[in-house]
Amino acid sequence: MARRGHRKPRRKDGGFQQLPPRVVRNPFDPVRVLNSEQVEKIHHASMTLLETMGMDFLDDDARETLRRAGAQVESGGNRVRMDRGMVLEAIAKAPSQFTLTPRNPARQVTIGGDNVVFCSVASAPNCSDLDGGRRVGNYRDFNNFLKLTQSINIIHVLGGYPVEPVDLPAETRHLDCYYSALTLMDKVWHPYALGTRRCADAVHMLSIATGRSPDQLRRQPGLFTVINTSSPMQIDAPMLQGLKELALAGQAIAVTPFTFSGAMSPVTLAGSLAQQNAEALATIAYAQIIAPGVPCIYGGFTSNVDMKSGSPAFGTPEYARATIAGGQLARRYRLPYRSSNANTANALGIQAGYESMMSLWAAVMSGANLVMHGAGWLESGLVASFEKMIIDTELLQMMAEFLAPIQVDENTLALDAILEAGPGGHFFGTAHTLERYQTAFYQPIISDWRNFESWQDSGAMTAAEKANAVYKVILDAYQPPALDPGIDEELKAFVERRRGEIQRMA
Amino acid sequence: MARRGHRKPRRKDGGFQQLPPRVVRNPFDPVRVLNSEQVEKIHHASMTLLETMGMDFLDDDARETLRRAGAQVESGGNRVRMDRGMVLEAIAKAPSQFTLTPRNPARQVTIGGDNVVFCSVASAPNCSDLDGGRRVGNYRDFNNFLKLTQSINIIHVLGGYPVEPVDLPAETRHLDCYYSALTLMDKVWHPYALGTRRCADAVHMLSIATGRSPDQLRRQPGLFTVINTSSPMQIDAPMLQGLKELALAGQAIAVTPFTFSGAMSPVTLAGSLAQQNAEALATIAYAQIIAPGVPCIYGGFTSNVDMKSGSPAFGTPEYARATIAGGQLARRYRLPYRSSNANTANALGIQAGYESMMSLWAAVMSGANLVMHGAGWLESGLVASFEKMIIDTELLQMMAEFLAPIQVDENTLALDAILEAGPGGHFFGTAHTLERYQTAFYQPIISDWRNFESWQDSGAMTAAEKANAVYKVILDAYQPPALDPGIDEELKAFVERRRGEIQRMA
Repeated sequence: MARRGHRKPRRKDGGFQQLPPRVVRNPFDPVRVLNSEQVEKIHHASMTLLETMGMDFLDDDARETLRRAGAQVESGGNRVRMDRGMVLEAIAKAPSQFTLTPRNPARQVTIGGDNVVFCSVASAPNCSDLDGGRRVGNYRDFNNFLKLTQSINIIHVLGGYPVEPVDLPAETRHLDCYYSALTLMDKVWHPYALGTRRCADAVHMLSIATGRSPDQLRRQPGLFTVINTSSPMQIDAPMLQGLKELALAGQAIAVTPFTFSGAMSPVTLAGSLAQQNAEALATIAYAQIIAPGVPCIYGGFTSNVDMKSGSPAFGTPEYARATIAGGQLARRYRLPYRSSNANTANALGIQAGYESMMSLWAAVMSGANLVMHGAGWLESGLVASFEKMIIDTELLQMMAEFLAPIQVDENTLALDAILEAGPGGHFFGTAHTLERYQTAFYQPIISDWRNFESWQDSGAMTAAEKANAVYKVILDAYQPPALDPGIDEELKAFVERRRGEIQRMA
Repeated sequence: MARRGHRKPRRKDGGFQQLPPRVVRNPFDPVRVLNSEQVEKIHHASMTLLETMGMDFLDDDARETLRRAGAQVESGGNRVRMDRGMVLEAIAKAPSQFTLTPRNPARQVTIGGDNVVFCSVASAPNCSDLDGGRRVGNYRDFNNFLKLTQSINIIHVLGGYPVEPVDLPAETRHLDCYYSALTLMDKVWHPYALGTRRCADAVHMLSIATGRSPDQLRRQPGLFTVINTSSPMQIDAPMLQGLKELALAGQAIAVTPFTFSGAMSPVTLAGSLAQQNAEALATIAYAQIIAPGVPCIYGGFTSNVDMKSGSPAFGTPEYARATIAGGQLARRYRLPYRSSNANTANALGIQAGYESMMSLWAAVMSGANLVMHGAGWLESGLVASFEKMIIDTELLQMMAEFLAPIQVDENTLALDAILEAGPGGHFFGTAHTLERYQTAFYQPIISDWRNFESWQDSGAMTAAEKANAVYKVILDAYQPPALDPGIDEELKAFVERRRGEIQRMA
């Protein structure tokens, strides 16, 4: 929550008035781009892939676990074949809805059903703002993104490292990042599934911060991680080890195949969706075999590549169709669904606006429960932008207001007001308007609704310039959420102990 | 159709490769923001308004017609009250789907059902491009917009005057505009319902251009007009007279109330929708009483005003909800539905992108059949932008591709290709990719998918700069559609005869 005006009076321009915290629920029946027969064909193709070709699991322990569970494992190789009975039986153990409870229980989120949870940008190597330009990620910017994520109500969850803090040593970086996530914020956060120890550290630190025992954390998880397959049909060892550690700790697993049509998956959408489905379900099945009932999320990220460069493009028509098809597949297996607010734009121009909206509408219309990269994503994820985070806050708020139900009753039908205004009259002065006008409509934080002349006369500020001012106002007013000093001590001690251990091992 | 490369070789940058002409059909069940009970409450409220308060029809002849049809007309006043039986009986005569056939029958459009027809920007007083800046409308710019509308396949229909050519005398302007619409284009167009004679001239010129008799034109209409009510609950004389002339000639009538919540309608959405419904249905009822069975379209344009300035804002959450509710109301009466691609932005920046997409997605998800202002609208309609027309062409093409069905069969499921690539492999070189990659994905005309460095190195061109180059390429390659010289002569002669008559009357 922004503590606007706490330290200094509110600025005239660039002030920040946001929507109060809210649970966003999607009232719409999800849109369908596939008929039932097409969904079944894709299902069948993906099961056939897992049965006949199989998938490479690049971790001995994972293969052994799968072999014991009934999979056919290639001797001396990485290939694992699972029949559909085994896969479907395993994934049926995943809950269709679950909650994640961070150290502040008021920030709990429910994933599944008609809930829509928005995450911050994650995993960008670079960040940018108008002042400092485009730069490699660092811990200062990392922390600033966390402060914004904490302060902006419509961002429910930290979706990962907003930007990689490469100025910190790679081996101990996670400790500093987790410490920031647990002290600068009190929302749900996301450690990376990069091997066992980093994930164990995350769970340990969550346990310190929440006072919940490992057993309690299993019953009341507070973290999620994204497991990306190395498409096509492969998953690497660090991911599998991280997955195992977090699954055994009862934390949530969002599995997202990297199926970029034309490069990492077939050039046809149906083929890419079949492959996405095979990779997602095989990985979720593995999680359920290790830890039956662990919360899992079906991730859809299928898009097309630019055939000129081979790079993925986002917010494209193919991306939007795949997003909606992915929602249908997730629902077929009664799994919560993850999508994104993605775009390929290099600048905060009109392309960033229309591509982001293409992605966001597709996500919402697909019935997505978790919208990754909800605020701050630019350049296909290569940049976390401070200004884009604020502009996306506008987009997410607009979407949340769009999803709010329309009240239809005698008061809102307002026949008396229409009578009072009368034919050819106006409503500015009616009692009905005066009672409601201050809160009747969504008030934008970025959109400029003044006419051209007023806008020109006041300096023709761009959305990016406005967002730049807003993000600084928020940082300026930021105050860390309350934390028991004893817990803070304990977290610090853990970080330093583990840092020492890791440094000695190196 | 763009005749790219007809006159000169294609430019390397700023070239224009567009989707071939296509009928856009919407495969989705329309989204619903109101439940059935809420729809009925709004229906009931709107009928109550027409029965008890009534609506002002500012034309003697219209009131007399309505009186004879059973309405209660205030003696010596403009007020008309109609009971719901009368209204519903009249509007039931309107077809739920119809076609408009311009002088080139290949450009025919069907309005209703699952068809989506995109129109050019209409009715802006100003226009702009990067070269000339923002300027008052003129005939040269008017004609250039018509040439673009003709050349761009995804713009199916000329939605009105893209910009008002104020350098032409107001009284005879329509003759020059119609002549342009019939010679620079062969698509469906839109004369304004501004009195009887202008509309009679439009029908007469269409008759010359198509060789269809008035009787044939009634059976095979080729024009549509938008009737705006003067909200609240009023309709002026020129609109009523133009409506009558066009309705008697069998041409299509799109009725769009100007219900801007907080100013011209109640500050609550339910009240604005009730008023929108009352105004739209009363006007459509009038059209059906004059000309039973004449094609009519239910228009939804309800949005909120900026309570600071009183000006309407577009692409807002309230606008999107009203758009979808409007579609539900139109379907309740089995009428085709009109929406828009609207925004309030002053510049071709990110706000124009996200507001336009908010409007366009809401339109498509609402099941809109006619999307007015599809390409070129800026500043709440105060500016027709040449660059925005090209950028919107991208948006409309993206939407059309998004709406195309996904093929799911053995070839597209591509199990062989996945086998060929194999776990950890890639698809660039598979036979399946090589056979399809050139046409597999939507190719953008504006979106820049290059990475940041390539984009920077090539000059960091903005979308607006790119669009500027594209629109000139299109104009450069433009050639007028074929027209029999005898018909052209006859059109010219008619224009000059009527110009003389009007000048002598003045």
